[in-house]
Amino acid sequence: MTGVAPLDGAGEGDVTFVGDAAHAKRIGASKARVIVISESLDAGDAASGRALVRVPDAEVAVIALLESFAPAPIRPPAGVHASAVIAADVAVPKDACIGAFVSIGARTRLGARVVMHEGVRVSENCEIGDDCVLHENVVVRERVRFGRRVVLHASAIIGSDGFGYRPAPGGRGLLRVPHLGSVRLDDDVEIGAGTCIDRAKFGETTIGAGTKIDNLCQIGHNVSIGRSCVIAGLTGIAGSAVIGDGCRIGGRVGISDHVRIGRGATIAATAGVMNDVPDGATWGGVPAQDIRLTLRELAAIRKLPEWSRRLRHLLEGDKK
Amino acid sequence: MTGVAPLDGAGEGDVTFVGDAAHAKRIGASKARVIVISESLDAGDAASGRALVRVPDAEVAVIALLESFAPAPIRPPAGVHASAVIAADVAVPKDACIGAFVSIGARTRLGARVVMHEGVRVSENCEIGDDCVLHENVVVRERVRFGRRVVLHASAIIGSDGFGYRPAPGGRGLLRVPHLGSVRLDDDVEIGAGTCIDRAKFGETTIGAGTKIDNLCQIGHNVSIGRSCVIAGLTGIAGSAVIGDGCRIGGRVGISDHVRIGRGATIAATAGVMNDVPDGATWGGVPAQDIRLTLRELAAIRKLPEWSRRLRHLLEGDKK
Amino acid sequence: MTGVAPLDGAGEGDVTFVGDAAHAKRIGASKARVIVISESLDAGDAASGRALVRVPDAEVAVIALLESFAPAPIRPPAGVHASAVIAADVAVPKDACIGAFVSIGARTRLGARVVMHEGVRVSENCEIGDDCVLHENVVVRERVRFGRRVVLHASAIIGSDGFGYRPAPGGRGLLRVPHLGSVRLDDDVEIGAGTCIDRAKFGETTIGAGTKIDNLCQIGHNVSIGRSCVIAGLTGIAGSAVIGDGCRIGGRVGISDHVRIGRGATIAATAGVMNDVPDGATWGGVPAQDIRLTLRELAAIRKLPEWSRRLRHLLEGDKK
Repeated sequence: MTGVAPLDGAGEGDVTFVGDAAHAKRIGASKARVIVISESLDAGDAASGRALVRVPDAEVAVIALLESFAPAPIRPPAGVHASAVIAADVAVPKDACIGAFVSIGARTRLGARVVMHEGVRVSENCEIGDDCVLHENVVVRERVRFGRRVVLHASAIIGSDGFGYRPAPGGRGLLRVPHLGSVRLDDDVEIGAGTCIDRAKFGETTIGAGTKIDNLCQIGHNVSIGRSCVIAGLTGIAGSAVIGDGCRIGGRVGISDHVRIGRGATIAATAGVMNDVPDGATWGGVPAQDIRLTLRELAAIRKLPEWSRRLRHLLEGDKK
Repeated sequence: MTGVAPLDGAGEGDVTFVGDAAHAKRIGASKARVIVISESLDAGDAASGRALVRVPDAEVAVIALLESFAPAPIRPPAGVHASAVIAADVAVPKDACIGAFVSIGARTRLGARVVMHEGVRVSENCEIGDDCVLHENVVVRERVRFGRRVVLHASAIIGSDGFGYRPAPGGRGLLRVPHLGSVRLDDDVEIGAGTCIDRAKFGETTIGAGTKIDNLCQIGHNVSIGRSCVIAGLTGIAGSAVIGDGCRIGGRVGISDHVRIGRGATIAATAGVMNDVPDGATWGGVPAQDIRLTLRELAAIRKLPEWSRRLRHLLEGDKK
Repeated sequence: MTGVAPLDGAGEGDVTFVGDAAHAKRIGASKARVIVISESLDAGDAASGRALVRVPDAEVAVIALLESFAPAPIRPPAGVHASAVIAADVAVPKDACIGAFVSIGARTRLGARVVMHEGVRVSENCEIGDDCVLHENVVVRERVRFGRRVVLHASAIIGSDGFGYRPAPGGRGLLRVPHLGSVRLDDDVEIGAGTCIDRAKFGETTIGAGTKIDNLCQIGHNVSIGRSCVIAGLTGIAGSAVIGDGCRIGGRVGISDHVRIGRGATIAATAGVMNDVPDGATWGGVPAQDIRLTLRELAAIRKLPEWSRRLRHLLEGDKK
């Protein structure tokens, strides 16, 4: 057995998996001889001659399977690379892995088994919890706090100053609003490559436990995101927005400042959210609203050129 | 007295501030005993028992107040960190702060008191004015010029090659257009984390004095942005667009190449601007137009499903 | 002769170029005395007193001309900078240019003449082909493979983990889907500053030969992009999407997961593509469709407030 592969790409030596009815119908076309399948599904006649492994949820089972095939994660060797520059008062746990060219500022506390890949920058007075992994060239500014098992992908930037200005008195340019607060990422948060999370004006910008944010997202100052949310790439969340627990936010979404998104809400990709979203709702469109309304409007717009033509005829007829 | 806090979050020991009528009405519910308030506002009875500090603009006053509470900015110690790699012909002013792992190329000139945080890369032939601050892992490519007090947040990238290709003769792939120009950032410009500003094909991509650009924006080759503009996150401005002085551009906006945006214009978040915008106008939507037209269309679209239903009835009635 | 300049900006000592009829009409107003012009164009009387250089395609000719004026590209000196940290088993070709603070992991193979600017991070088991150029602070994660002449602009991130999670059994948080695959960039691919290309769950995320991707784009796990595509900035392509050869994709476009875009298709800026696009089609809008339909709908929407008014009149008249 050589590995795990998707149904269509699997060779005879691979394990494959079937987690939905659409894939179940295509079993016959796969070369795989070992199929992990959700027990709710019917494999049909096509499964004959193959080993079916029935599990409660094939997608979950395959995650465990993949991990058993996965190479060990790449990380710097345990200890501190000779080139790293670490402030004298920082205690590095002996099982930490600190790579080349890492810099760590004064009074920062490091949890057990933290991993910092090459070029990571952590500033002063930070707290990095046990088992956090910071990938290459991540930047963590001063006073930021992480829980345990936080993962930051390459070049993520945590704790940059929030974006706030006021016209200077007398109309001469702009005054910058100082951002005295910071950022807190709770346990099991994962932040994508290049994603920016700005520090609060007061208090903390917070990301709740278990929330996952994709690459190249912008999270503004004083935003509060709940637990176990999933936020896809290129999404922007403006200052002081509040996102409830368990929300799912699609790619390229924009959320205006101070908007509140209720628990368990879903925001469709590309939406622009300018009003509060109720708990559990599914919203989409620009400006976003209940997605059923948006879809109804889209359907009406699709017919609009034809209605226009007929309406012109009617109105012109009417005028005669 | 322990600090400055927003009206709702302030404790008894905090100073708070009230800059608009909506907050003035909520003074009664705040624990703060010292309130900085704009002199145009009426604090009402709720203010009794509290110290009111009347100022022309509470938001401006609180900026000064915040700065007095703010910890000193974190920066590398004065001098050059032992690990920095600086070309032999670069004169480092003695009050500059150059952090660990910084690299600076030949013939680059540094102004007084420049600050470069860990991992900053400045290439050859650049000019960095007095009091500029370059945060961690910023990249500045060759021949880029900064005025004074320019701030670049972490991982900002200034002077990458512009994006321009031509089909190669004979249809064999794409030829890259060389970008011989550069980038100039004038005094007091501030550039957000991860934001990219591309170098010009000829001449310079320019950002005028006092302009502030948020995180993860993309500014194309030969763009010219005026003075004191404010541009929010995830905005993209395509090649050779011209933005006048004092424009305000919302988040996730796209501006097409060669478009001209007049002085003092406002572009609403998520707009896609494909045509020139007059001075002082407020535009929104995709494609963008005067926002009053966009809002009128949105209102009509909201009613469209209902109109469709009635119209179908009318037209079918009409046909009979 | 001092350089190459655009028609409007050229001085007497500059060469300029004219590649289309609009510019040909403006020749009279230019100071340039030497004009490179496409042979299909008529320069008219205005050209008298100037040297016209007739070529098949002035835009292509000017690229060659620009290159002859261009300063030599800035790169680290040949050899390995003393500060670089390179795994013991990596063979560095003697004509490679490896800058300060570069790190390269074990078992990575480097082609001839590779250039790595300051702060580049290449992990283990990678293949970097001949003549690749990696700009400052680029991150390349483990097992990534590049063809020849691949260019990565500053802070591009290749091979971060794909974004995939499943609800954990029992509803307790999210399980991360392991991403065992990698990324392959073929010959002559160019990747913009800050752009992220995620590794595949299985197999490889692939970018075909000659494809050019602009700054701050997000390319999801298992995406397959064909040859000679051009993709503008801030575009996001979700997991497992397939883009055919020769596609042109505008700025700020979003493409949903598993969508297929046919060969030679064009996607207009700001589009949101949720369905498969036929070969050679031009699509736009959100959700995207044939751009002629989108333009027709936009025209109808522009008239909608007026139709609404007339329709209300008609329907109210009708009810009486």
